[in-house]
Amino acid sequence: MALREELEGLLEGVQKGELSPSDVLERFASLPVRDLGFARLDAHREVRQGAPEAVLADGKTPEQAAAIVAALLEAGAGSVLVTRAGPETRTAVRAVAPDAQEDERARAIWVARGRPERRGVVVMVSAGTSDGPVLHEARIRAELLGAEVVVHEDVGVAGLHRLGAVLPDLERADCVVVVAGMDAALASVVGGLAPVPVIGVPTSVGYGSAQGGRTALNAMLCSCAAGLAVVGIDDGFGAGTVAAMIARRAGPRAS
Amino acid sequence: MALREELEGLLEGVQKGELSPSDVLERFASLPVRDLGFARLDAHREVRQGAPEAVLADGKTPEQAAAIVAALLEAGAGSVLVTRAGPETRTAVRAVAPDAQEDERARAIWVARGRPERRGVVVMVSAGTSDGPVLHEARIRAELLGAEVVVHEDVGVAGLHRLGAVLPDLERADCVVVVAGMDAALASVVGGLAPVPVIGVPTSVGYGSAQGGRTALNAMLCSCAAGLAVVGIDDGFGAGTVAAMIARRAGPRAS
Amino acid sequence: MALREELEGLLEGVQKGELSPSDVLERFASLPVRDLGFARLDAHREVRQGAPEAVLADGKTPEQAAAIVAALLEAGAGSVLVTRAGPETRTAVRAVAPDAQEDERARAIWVARGRPERRGVVVMVSAGTSDGPVLHEARIRAELLGAEVVVHEDVGVAGLHRLGAVLPDLERADCVVVVAGMDAALASVVGGLAPVPVIGVPTSVGYGSAQGGRTALNAMLCSCAAGLAVVGIDDGFGAGTVAAMIARRAGPRAS
Amino acid sequence: MALREELEGLLEGVQKGELSPSDVLERFASLPVRDLGFARLDAHREVRQGAPEAVLADGKTPEQAAAIVAALLEAGAGSVLVTRAGPETRTAVRAVAPDAQEDERARAIWVARGRPERRGVVVMVSAGTSDGPVLHEARIRAELLGAEVVVHEDVGVAGLHRLGAVLPDLERADCVVVVAGMDAALASVVGGLAPVPVIGVPTSVGYGSAQGGRTALNAMLCSCAAGLAVVGIDDGFGAGTVAAMIARRAGPRAS
Amino acid sequence: MALREELEGLLEGVQKGELSPSDVLERFASLPVRDLGFARLDAHREVRQGAPEAVLADGKTPEQAAAIVAALLEAGAGSVLVTRAGPETRTAVRAVAPDAQEDERARAIWVARGRPERRGVVVMVSAGTSDGPVLHEARIRAELLGAEVVVHEDVGVAGLHRLGAVLPDLERADCVVVVAGMDAALASVVGGLAPVPVIGVPTSVGYGSAQGGRTALNAMLCSCAAGLAVVGIDDGFGAGTVAAMIARRAGPRAS
Amino acid sequence: MALREELEGLLEGVQKGELSPSDVLERFASLPVRDLGFARLDAHREVRQGAPEAVLADGKTPEQAAAIVAALLEAGAGSVLVTRAGPETRTAVRAVAPDAQEDERARAIWVARGRPERRGVVVMVSAGTSDGPVLHEARIRAELLGAEVVVHEDVGVAGLHRLGAVLPDLERADCVVVVAGMDAALASVVGGLAPVPVIGVPTSVGYGSAQGGRTALNAMLCSCAAGLAVVGIDDGFGAGTVAAMIARRAGPRAS
Amino acid sequence: MALREELEGLLEGVQKGELSPSDVLERFASLPVRDLGFARLDAHREVRQGAPEAVLADGKTPEQAAAIVAALLEAGAGSVLVTRAGPETRTAVRAVAPDAQEDERARAIWVARGRPERRGVVVMVSAGTSDGPVLHEARIRAELLGAEVVVHEDVGVAGLHRLGAVLPDLERADCVVVVAGMDAALASVVGGLAPVPVIGVPTSVGYGSAQGGRTALNAMLCSCAAGLAVVGIDDGFGAGTVAAMIARRAGPRAS
Amino acid sequence: MALREELEGLLEGVQKGELSPSDVLERFASLPVRDLGFARLDAHREVRQGAPEAVLADGKTPEQAAAIVAALLEAGAGSVLVTRAGPETRTAVRAVAPDAQEDERARAIWVARGRPERRGVVVMVSAGTSDGPVLHEARIRAELLGAEVVVHEDVGVAGLHRLGAVLPDLERADCVVVVAGMDAALASVVGGLAPVPVIGVPTSVGYGSAQGGRTALNAMLCSCAAGLAVVGIDDGFGAGTVAAMIARRAGPRAS
Repeated sequence: MALREELEGLLEGVQKGELSPSDVLERFASLPVRDLGFARLDAHREVRQGAPEAVLADGKTPEQAAAIVAALLEAGAGSVLVTRAGPETRTAVRAVAPDAQEDERARAIWVARGRPERRGVVVMVSAGTSDGPVLHEARIRAELLGAEVVVHEDVGVAGLHRLGAVLPDLERADCVVVVAGMDAALASVVGGLAPVPVIGVPTSVGYGSAQGGRTALNAMLCSCAAGLAVVGIDDGFGAGTVAAMIARRAGPRAS
Repeated sequence: MALREELEGLLEGVQKGELSPSDVLERFASLPVRDLGFARLDAHREVRQGAPEAVLADGKTPEQAAAIVAALLEAGAGSVLVTRAGPETRTAVRAVAPDAQEDERARAIWVARGRPERRGVVVMVSAGTSDGPVLHEARIRAELLGAEVVVHEDVGVAGLHRLGAVLPDLERADCVVVVAGMDAALASVVGGLAPVPVIGVPTSVGYGSAQGGRTALNAMLCSCAAGLAVVGIDDGFGAGTVAAMIARRAGPRAS
Repeated sequence: MALREELEGLLEGVQKGELSPSDVLERFASLPVRDLGFARLDAHREVRQGAPEAVLADGKTPEQAAAIVAALLEAGAGSVLVTRAGPETRTAVRAVAPDAQEDERARAIWVARGRPERRGVVVMVSAGTSDGPVLHEARIRAELLGAEVVVHEDVGVAGLHRLGAVLPDLERADCVVVVAGMDAALASVVGGLAPVPVIGVPTSVGYGSAQGGRTALNAMLCSCAAGLAVVGIDDGFGAGTVAAMIARRAGPRAS
Repeated sequence: MALREELEGLLEGVQKGELSPSDVLERFASLPVRDLGFARLDAHREVRQGAPEAVLADGKTPEQAAAIVAALLEAGAGSVLVTRAGPETRTAVRAVAPDAQEDERARAIWVARGRPERRGVVVMVSAGTSDGPVLHEARIRAELLGAEVVVHEDVGVAGLHRLGAVLPDLERADCVVVVAGMDAALASVVGGLAPVPVIGVPTSVGYGSAQGGRTALNAMLCSCAAGLAVVGIDDGFGAGTVAAMIARRAGPRAS
Repeated sequence: MALREELEGLLEGVQKGELSPSDVLERFASLPVRDLGFARLDAHREVRQGAPEAVLADGKTPEQAAAIVAALLEAGAGSVLVTRAGPETRTAVRAVAPDAQEDERARAIWVARGRPERRGVVVMVSAGTSDGPVLHEARIRAELLGAEVVVHEDVGVAGLHRLGAVLPDLERADCVVVVAGMDAALASVVGGLAPVPVIGVPTSVGYGSAQGGRTALNAMLCSCAAGLAVVGIDDGFGAGTVAAMIARRAGPRAS
Repeated sequence: MALREELEGLLEGVQKGELSPSDVLERFASLPVRDLGFARLDAHREVRQGAPEAVLADGKTPEQAAAIVAALLEAGAGSVLVTRAGPETRTAVRAVAPDAQEDERARAIWVARGRPERRGVVVMVSAGTSDGPVLHEARIRAELLGAEVVVHEDVGVAGLHRLGAVLPDLERADCVVVVAGMDAALASVVGGLAPVPVIGVPTSVGYGSAQGGRTALNAMLCSCAAGLAVVGIDDGFGAGTVAAMIARRAGPRAS
Repeated sequence: MALREELEGLLEGVQKGELSPSDVLERFASLPVRDLGFARLDAHREVRQGAPEAVLADGKTPEQAAAIVAALLEAGAGSVLVTRAGPETRTAVRAVAPDAQEDERARAIWVARGRPERRGVVVMVSAGTSDGPVLHEARIRAELLGAEVVVHEDVGVAGLHRLGAVLPDLERADCVVVVAGMDAALASVVGGLAPVPVIGVPTSVGYGSAQGGRTALNAMLCSCAAGLAVVGIDDGFGAGTVAAMIARRAGPRAS
Repeated sequence: MALREELEGLLEGVQKGELSPSDVLERFASLPVRDLGFARLDAHREVRQGAPEAVLADGKTPEQAAAIVAALLEAGAGSVLVTRAGPETRTAVRAVAPDAQEDERARAIWVARGRPERRGVVVMVSAGTSDGPVLHEARIRAELLGAEVVVHEDVGVAGLHRLGAVLPDLERADCVVVVAGMDAALASVVGGLAPVPVIGVPTSVGYGSAQGGRTALNAMLCSCAAGLAVVGIDDGFGAGTVAAMIARRAGPRAS
């Protein structure tokens, strides 16, 4: 670790008489805090050289978003993912990153460099077609983090038979993501079936009593399915992140 | 219909010269409004002579509740059901109605006189043991209204297999009542299976994100299961009422 | 029932030595779950060959909605109803289903094939003109399910006299639907008059304290009118479904 | 007006040379602000010498409440009303005001001295027995302010016929107070019937979806009945105040 | 009263043998309910021949709004007021009612025929410029109902001195309307100064913690100013109605 | 898998002519649903013979809770954990399970039989002393599921230096649980430091603006710390479950 | 003090016989209230001749906003700041105040005349780029009030190391402003580090569980960091005001 | 500063050859983070040797609270303040700290050692008697931090004249604290009068629409009074802290 080496260097300088204690103290004061101990911990965001950076386009102008992307790439970032990116933001990003890929439905655009090798399987299941944008944001994020993602959309819950096709994939998942709005009953049903951690993503799909996703959120938090944890409303990005972290770390399933 | 006959009698009295128009007008003014046209409509509360009256004990002193029961019985009421009745209220009611029956868990006490013949089947399903008080309030109410009630408690949803034992009864139900708190996913699952109207009763069971039943309520209202309607939180009484009304009117199932 | 016959056929194949046990097991594994027991229950969505399918256009692109309609019709669906369908969605649906009918106010478009014979009477009452879209969504849905629907709009409650014209129809209803926003007092008043189950539909009509329909919803849930159950805010579709289910099953009124 | 005269007196003292300008300025500084202009306006709280003072016992110890009562009486207050007064507070108040009257149900205790002559009629209507405490707090307050109060309790709304007995009194009211919890539909119905201003008091009666009175409050605020204004949840005191102010000022009804 | 006379006529017809009892009963059945007893009560909406009718344009198309106006005028209505009327609605209304007057800021358009003579003084006070549309809706409504209205806009509360100019008018008011958003402190301050009933109108002015007017609403409901009642958020119409009803009935101020 | 073998046995019986197809069909009908396909999936709740069962004592009487424990143990359950167990419930459980262990602070009592071997490290961190009950419920649950748990209580966030002692343990964790109420800032800070999945547990600690834990919940859901997912308010049980599932599956950390 | 002198002058006029008492009383009546005692207190808004006036453009038309600015300048105002000013409002203001400066991001336009000399240091820190508009509104306001402002944007909290660069400035601040949305954890972290009062500004940045800033607001209010007080959501103006008031009054830091 | 000296000592040890670089690195690793850079910043909690420590008794057992107090005193703390301390907690604390002082109304107990000299004036104003506990918690806290506190209780706002007695003290305040529940209008009024920063403390006093203090909180946040910032509901402790920090730093008022 660079910091440790740098510190060792400074201390050896003192040991050798090349530096005085007060020189070193001054050096300490001018270093950013991270150089004094936190940098190592931050390293988990950079699992490897090609680590994914992320930019939330909401609340930024297209120009701001593009400038950040350009700066990150220039600074040597691996992949960069821009979320909640409308058409104008995507155009602005493409201008600074011609090799960017994008997904209109997920409102995402990204540059993928030095993507890590695939490891771990995340199964992502959505209740309805309208949950698609959130599901695919999660998928893109998890894939950039190096997970293999299997997608089942529009599974519903009122007709349980549609779950049939999902069961075999649940069996081989290292982590499951359930994307559902409205009453989010799918999360409880899948959570009762899946033998692995399940990440629920409530969506703001629906009107009236759906309350912009708060009903789905609360329903997921209340679920008595074992092994279910939840991210924020419509937060596909967060779900993709935690699911990939779980899946990539998972060892082989105990038979 | 009594009112029509009474009016006819008055008018005939005028016709015969036994009453003057102003006599009749005075009589009109002294009648309660219901005698001027609404009484007939109110009759649905009295399906037969032994019609059930109901008293909500919440917000009343034991003495008030007992006094109302006594007055109703004296006035010739058929059955009288007191809900949300704590031990003291039940004691007070027993003092005025020695033939009262009670159910401690449902916090209910009732006098059943001239109960109507059984007609129609209501299947009542609860998610957990803690939903019992609400379920049994619904059951007692529906039975007093003349429905046959079949109860399945503690069905859950995280383990779908527990639904197995319920399926045959769902097949023969005229109406289904689902009592569930927390995420109320059971309502969606049963609503997707039952071929008849389903009445959901959200319960205030659970803590934190259950929000005193609001999560269950909203989840039921958001359910995409066809044929599901909902009553208020913990309102077993209301569910029993509407379910019995549906079931008793139901004709034979089309094969 | 098809499944039972199919299973019997498989088992007879084993009995006759035409199939081995492992053949049958494999066949089991490849069937969707519904073929293993749930399909029969799902049948309530298809009361007859011309069963109505429904598509919620909200959250779907016009193209997605139209593609689903086309697929359903191709798969032999009877009627298909698209709700929350704006002008563009309706245009897209007409392109794939030239025989579609539509209702601009209800934002609905539908294909009606093999509609079931009329049975049961649903009376639908709205508080104000602005509740019209929700009421008509309910009406269209209930008619497609085979109920006879009688509509009274703009009944209000502050002027009770307007209820006068509705009373005779309440008398002959098998189920009543009340569509009301704001304080939804109409639901309590009608619920106190109608001798049959009443389905309340809170609407998001109104501003300020109407809170997007939550006030109407809560008021309906709190109503002490007997026999009232509620669907979600603006959920005309759900109300039409459950009301038709109740009405079609209703036997002749006991005199 | 006393203040004007006092000022005039001071200024004349200056004019006559009896007071120096700085004497007057000092006098100004030592006067409470109200003596500098607001006092006159404050006078509405003291319609006459026996004006009612009020003490909210909630959040005060019995001793604090009693001490305030004693101080007010000593200062020459006319009537003093203590609201939200539990048994201990009432005992403490009786100790300092032996001529106090009290109402257990309304949790009120008061001393009435020099009560104004009766003027104006307030009709107070409640939906159920449980609304009684709030209704009677309103009644006591309005009576202390000099209004005549007519009470109709437990009128309900699901059975409109019960309104019949109230109609004649609505005809002669100068102001109507409607006390109702749950869905508060009674406010809309009475508001549609009464030809005078109606003050709604939402109560916290009920459970679940009643939301501690917020549903009743919002429903009243949404009512389309003309001439309805609202006070806070359970605020019988406020309703009694404003209703008495309206009724006492009312001239004879235009025929 | 017309109804009484009509009934008397019918009964005399029976008395004279011109009508049979069954004729009369049939006639009863065909009359709207209001003809059976409620019409008289409804009369308060028509204080005189030129009574104001009102149409809420929100949720109605311009054509619907205009058609209702045309129908009301044709039916002989006195004044008709259309609220929440955008430019298109106002254009449509002008086409059917060329003598309509309008107020762009209040989003109101109205026809005033046979306006009642002025009686009673309503003082209307707003906290800020942005409360103007609500204040003027209240003003127009109250004026159409025959009250004299005095307006003070932009009074604020953080600088109490601005209240100075309002004080003399508060002195001569029969009713005061306070229009305020945000923290609505103006309502408490004015409520503490005015010796007459005060109607508070919370407005949705402000952002963030103003919560669309709910903060102002709740603050007004919590105010300890005596004699304050409240209407719904932004409900200038309701405030104008109840204030005019109070003011017009007010007798001369007791000196 | 038992079910497969059982099915195979049945089919072989048919093949051999020992069973008729209708015998087998009847047998199918009498099996619980889980025997028809879901049982295998349910098996994840029983990772091994000594699988933990759980009972939520809230909403159950002490007798009910104890009876369920007795039944589970009799049925051969491995460990059984009773949560939200007050003193009376714990006494009742001890009576049926003398070898039960308990933790007063966590309000938990449990029987641990055949506990799985330890695997995976969960680090649990709480913000304050008052979060202890929730943290220890999580700890007990995770330990019963076979995880090694390291606890750091009262870490706070306003004094970041207290985090210092936690850092080395964060380094070796397979999963981190953060238990925090109020503003839950600790979750963001730890989430920014820990290189593994973090499970946040909002607690209802605090008053006023803490809103019973909803502030902590929402703050955690909004956190921009990567890899954070959340369970319900005060849901130590849920956090312990999902954290243990993640940790036990985790392979060796990539260096 | 001007008022005192004016009063003294008047009184001396009476003393000298130049004014009669009634002249003076009349003069009193015609003065705004502030001239009778409050004006002095109001003076805090005018720290010096060039005091800043402020106009909230929200809810005002561009013309209204510009007219107010023109009137204020004409009346001799020092600086005038218009907040929430969109492009059209800024254009309208520039037309009446050609020397106005503006900041598009902060949606602010202002005229600065006679700006006070700089005194006191306010350090303003934001969590993310999207918080910029609020931060800069605060900055402009504080600068117009005469404070020196140091800005650190996009500090975040998930990566604590970014705080490093801020620490030296926190050391020299007289007041700190933290602008943050979402979970607002930055406020707790900075509040734990800064040795001076911290003003938190929750922002409406974020979606879903951010709840339009209410989560950030509640989190800040719950923070256990000492010395933290909060202004309304997105209220950069308010934060700039109070922070400048604190900073300008601050004496030299005790070493 | 101790840390700097310690670091210097270590480095000199290296310089002198008494310590090797790896010795020092190991020593670094074992130090709490604060020793690596944050300690200095934390020092603001210890303005002097007798710095106040605080313990929130809510959620802690009396024994836990007392043990923490004992530990803090033993560790050499100056003053220690325990808030939200019921009678049992206060008894337990007295047992370990016989020199503790307490205030029953404020539910506070504290040990004051080496209290700093008084500096700066905080004026604390409450709206009603019931706000007393919160006001006195604030007062005690501020006094322990070394501020002079002037208290005005029960000032109200409906009768503005009561403010008169407060005005002179507002003039000499360095910071004002306003404690108010319900509509909290007092905060706006005082905020409009006081020429210094005002800290608002919303209280949970009141019922119904007061919503446990949320109405007061939101009203304060919406206030347009300049220079008002807010702490959490009932958070007297927080208000006392920030007010004392502001007041003690304040230089002499510019005349």
